[in-house]
Amino acid sequence: MAVKIAGYLLDLDGTVYLGERLIPGADRAIETLRTRGRRIVFLSNKPLQARRDYAAKLTHLGVPASENDVINSSYVLARYLSHHAPGATVYAIGEPPLLAELRAAGFAISEDPKKIEYVIAAFDRTFDYRKLNIAFQALRRGARFIATNPDRTCPVDDGEIPDAAGVIAALEATTGRKVETVVGKPSHHTVEVALERLGLPADACAMVGDRLETDIVMGRGAGLTAILTLTGVTPRDAVSTASVMPDHVIESITVLPDLDEKLNT
Amino acid sequence: MAVKIAGYLLDLDGTVYLGERLIPGADRAIETLRTRGRRIVFLSNKPLQARRDYAAKLTHLGVPASENDVINSSYVLARYLSHHAPGATVYAIGEPPLLAELRAAGFAISEDPKKIEYVIAAFDRTFDYRKLNIAFQALRRGARFIATNPDRTCPVDDGEIPDAAGVIAALEATTGRKVETVVGKPSHHTVEVALERLGLPADACAMVGDRLETDIVMGRGAGLTAILTLTGVTPRDAVSTASVMPDHVIESITVLPDLDEKLNT
Repeated sequence: MAVKIAGYLLDLDGTVYLGERLIPGADRAIETLRTRGRRIVFLSNKPLQARRDYAAKLTHLGVPASENDVINSSYVLARYLSHHAPGATVYAIGEPPLLAELRAAGFAISEDPKKIEYVIAAFDRTFDYRKLNIAFQALRRGARFIATNPDRTCPVDDGEIPDAAGVIAALEATTGRKVETVVGKPSHHTVEVALERLGLPADACAMVGDRLETDIVMGRGAGLTAILTLTGVTPRDAVSTASVMPDHVIESITVLPDLDEKLNT
Repeated sequence: MAVKIAGYLLDLDGTVYLGERLIPGADRAIETLRTRGRRIVFLSNKPLQARRDYAAKLTHLGVPASENDVINSSYVLARYLSHHAPGATVYAIGEPPLLAELRAAGFAISEDPKKIEYVIAAFDRTFDYRKLNIAFQALRRGARFIATNPDRTCPVDDGEIPDAAGVIAALEATTGRKVETVVGKPSHHTVEVALERLGLPADACAMVGDRLETDIVMGRGAGLTAILTLTGVTPRDAVSTASVMPDHVIESITVLPDLDEKLNT
């Protein structure tokens, strides 16, 4: 019998783990899917860690993963820029792992507004006025304006903290310009990198995540099967009023193998 | 004959001086108006210096002024808060002179989001993520949200730098809330403090400034005679397409005594 869903794009926080805790049974569920030959890639919108750090965390939690199994927004951004402006001189409001990702992809990083061709706005817990002004001056001189992820806030152990939306908004408000591209979820740029990694077409893949406005919007928009899991930020009663509906809703990733079986028969 | 215009609200940068240079003849023009008994107050949207610093600068440039002749957005904000929430616990994203103004007006300044009743967004060249997060946490807990001035950028010797609009936007984008009040020009709060200082009603005063969207909008909106001067950011050909038109246009403050004579005959 033909396999319909051969690949899964799995969101991380809220789907595979919650902070530092694995969703109970996520390890066995993923192992089961892999045993059936399903290809899996893990997605995060956070540009704060290197992909190998996510892989190490997953492996430590019982889900063996390598750097190549993980796609985050800094990686998607480096891929996007490699395609559109290889070797460009860039400036990023971002943390060291983002800068390392950019350098590794062959970009020159400059703080000279006259030289900066691309300004990159990201989630940056070391954001300050000096960085804002460098990016501002470069944008006023005509630099391109892109961002890693559109999130307003990032969940942390004791609540939430300001995410990349604050950096994007500060630059938009002071320059009068609008960000041109935000590559992270729900952008199609993230899907494209993930499908390329899986080596599968969109209609052979499912996106699994806990956020309607990113995971489900992105999955449906790109033609994937969109599966909402209820272990993260979305309660079940929010589903009925969603502007973009998931194709399927599961209590937890634990039951994803059951759904996989149904989808593939 | 009755005096019609008895008081002048004079914008500073672009109207009385340009950076560190007096507009040629501004000293004599202001002296002439004062000799005629006109009352004068100087307005700035910048929350960066204390009012006595503006007074010292004016005096140094040949326009004698005391602290009480100057109104800037940090002073208007302290006055506004003194009226609405005397003694409140506040947190300001702002520079030391703003904090000093708030302390002098009897406000407690706290970095504890649980205690903060008002978050104040201002022009702050020492803005950083730590400040953003303190303000964010306080706003998420329900603190009120006000700002000194709405300016996107601030002119400096070699161009412009990001102003308070960046701070406001970063907080709005991450909290999902909107700033409730911005007290600086073109707000009526600034006019009210200025008229109180002059001891005159709106229709006995003229607002003189170089910016259509702040000085002229505010003057017209509050029922003052609005006079645009062309020594600052607005070129003459921008006047014909302004959404709010000035009552009068002058080449420079130098000729304000001539206009004063016409207005008062």
